[in-house]
Amino acid sequence: MHALTVLPGRADSAQLDLLPEPTADGARVLLRALDIGVCGTDREILAGKYGTAPPGQKRLILGHESLGEVLRAPEGARFAAGDLAVAFVRRPDPVPCPACARGEWDMCKNGRYTERGIKERHGYAAEQYTVRPEFLVPVPAALRNVGVLVEPTSVVAKAWEQIERIGARATTAAQRVMVTGCGPIGLLAALLGRQRGLDVHVFDRHRDGLKPELARALGATYHCGDLDQLDLQADIVLECTGAPGVVIDAVRHLAPDGIVCLTGVSSGGRRIGVDVGRFNRELVLENGVVFGSVNANRRHYIAAVDALARADRAWLERLITRRVPLARWREAFTQHPEDVKTVLDFANSAHAY
Amino acid sequence: MHALTVLPGRADSAQLDLLPEPTADGARVLLRALDIGVCGTDREILAGKYGTAPPGQKRLILGHESLGEVLRAPEGARFAAGDLAVAFVRRPDPVPCPACARGEWDMCKNGRYTERGIKERHGYAAEQYTVRPEFLVPVPAALRNVGVLVEPTSVVAKAWEQIERIGARATTAAQRVMVTGCGPIGLLAALLGRQRGLDVHVFDRHRDGLKPELARALGATYHCGDLDQLDLQADIVLECTGAPGVVIDAVRHLAPDGIVCLTGVSSGGRRIGVDVGRFNRELVLENGVVFGSVNANRRHYIAAVDALARADRAWLERLITRRVPLARWREAFTQHPEDVKTVLDFANSAHAY
Repeated sequence: MHALTVLPGRADSAQLDLLPEPTADGARVLLRALDIGVCGTDREILAGKYGTAPPGQKRLILGHESLGEVLRAPEGARFAAGDLAVAFVRRPDPVPCPACARGEWDMCKNGRYTERGIKERHGYAAEQYTVRPEFLVPVPAALRNVGVLVEPTSVVAKAWEQIERIGARATTAAQRVMVTGCGPIGLLAALLGRQRGLDVHVFDRHRDGLKPELARALGATYHCGDLDQLDLQADIVLECTGAPGVVIDAVRHLAPDGIVCLTGVSSGGRRIGVDVGRFNRELVLENGVVFGSVNANRRHYIAAVDALARADRAWLERLITRRVPLARWREAFTQHPEDVKTVLDFANSAHAY
Repeated sequence: MHALTVLPGRADSAQLDLLPEPTADGARVLLRALDIGVCGTDREILAGKYGTAPPGQKRLILGHESLGEVLRAPEGARFAAGDLAVAFVRRPDPVPCPACARGEWDMCKNGRYTERGIKERHGYAAEQYTVRPEFLVPVPAALRNVGVLVEPTSVVAKAWEQIERIGARATTAAQRVMVTGCGPIGLLAALLGRQRGLDVHVFDRHRDGLKPELARALGATYHCGDLDQLDLQADIVLECTGAPGVVIDAVRHLAPDGIVCLTGVSSGGRRIGVDVGRFNRELVLENGVVFGSVNANRRHYIAAVDALARADRAWLERLITRRVPLARWREAFTQHPEDVKTVLDFANSAHAY
């Protein structure tokens, strides 16, 4: 079978390999890949800046945003041939930390988790793969075209859950949300905010085009220009760019008792001038919270499937701006300004070899 | 009666005035001042950098950390002559915001709260003052010598409550706490951490002397030196210095899923070089929280009285490093390196004039 692999740590080492098909032992579900989403982490891995191969191996099969079709399932596994399913990314260490032991591997305390397609485990960018059924969430057939969005939506569902849990420290309810960044995470965060009935404002630098359109189609208000000059205070800020300047400006737009959720994984190494005294003073005098959220566990995948099932299907389909056949996989990793989510199309690619 | 007043906005304008004694209307409790604590906010007000006089008045009576003795109370007020009481600092606006309307003026959403001795209301640094009974907490007679610590302890009790509420977002319990800063807020934060049975580490720059002694006497581990070099990760960091460099370093000592609580009100206006990308990335990849906490409402004052009642009385008394008679009030506002809490002694001062 074909699988997209990299040599972790080496830039531009990605290639399409021919590997033996996996055999599902009695405990695993065998799936065929339909769609594989591409995200910033994949591009970091391709650039040689991130990622680790499984112990004893040199290459890593890429891909962690998946949608697969079950080919064969163990008896009693609640999956049958033909079912759609999305596999989780993270796995607890065999000797789990206290969080992983509770199934909350997204809150792993010792960093010894593994991640399929990222850290010490092969990913899903292969024509076939196997997964233990407890690491799979079923996806309704109606979500065939957009089920690949379950994984990024699970990250957003976790962020929203954490915002709500942290928000419970105060008794007054949030009303206004600002989302910075109009990529897939930003737009999905805006979707989940609208599904909660909140007044959602989306900020990005695009003056027009698809991204502002997608934000407005949700019933959100779209803003662009200089974030520092924007006259808007929000009870919740979802920062989805990871850009250092935006992270600092986001805190300036926080209303009293507000919460900033950081979701962007930025790269470090560059210092910028920050008035930390003011940052500290504003957070203290206004009871502000800034927190980071990463990954997702089972309940967030379930919440993600539910959120996508309740969303407008046509709107979700517009988020997938390019479907690249596997044979032309290189094109999927070059970014175009109008890209929201690029998907590697495995289902319709087999004949291309 | 004597009262310590300032002209807000003008440095070194403090003076001891002779003012008419207040008359308690039928709804207010009349108290005589016993002790008034001095804190950084008072020093900011004396420097002309903070504080607002009541509407239509030029001068502001100072003092927000109080311990008073009831002289006269309205009928049915649950206070009687001779009782000790501490008055709250903040008051909601007459048209309260949603938080203030719930009694949570510490979470005020519109900034229209007032504060006795700080913002638009006279303080308690007067031989007599009146307070509506709903803004008073009773203090057991046994706490006579340390009751002036109730207000700073209420700030710490709120910080701990918020840490615990925010901590409830995750299912694993915190074990190790780092407190940065060995002032009254830092030491009281360490006390409340020890009362929760946690492993408490206190950091400050003093190599020896009273502050390390007070930290160790709690059963906490004391650290000094270069915070950046300290090999310690904590589930909870209570940042009690407000120093910009310490605020940034504090985040580096956070364990996964950890919480930094900022309590120090620093002054802004100076930029320092910060690797915001790294700050953001670490918070995201480790689910970190940074939040600010200010002020306290009724339940936090009650928690503070309870915490002080359960603490070692001799230890608390050592926190009050100087008692300055009112006649020599200027001495109370100059800082000595060994100062923890300086108190203006009103009870034994009357004869000095």
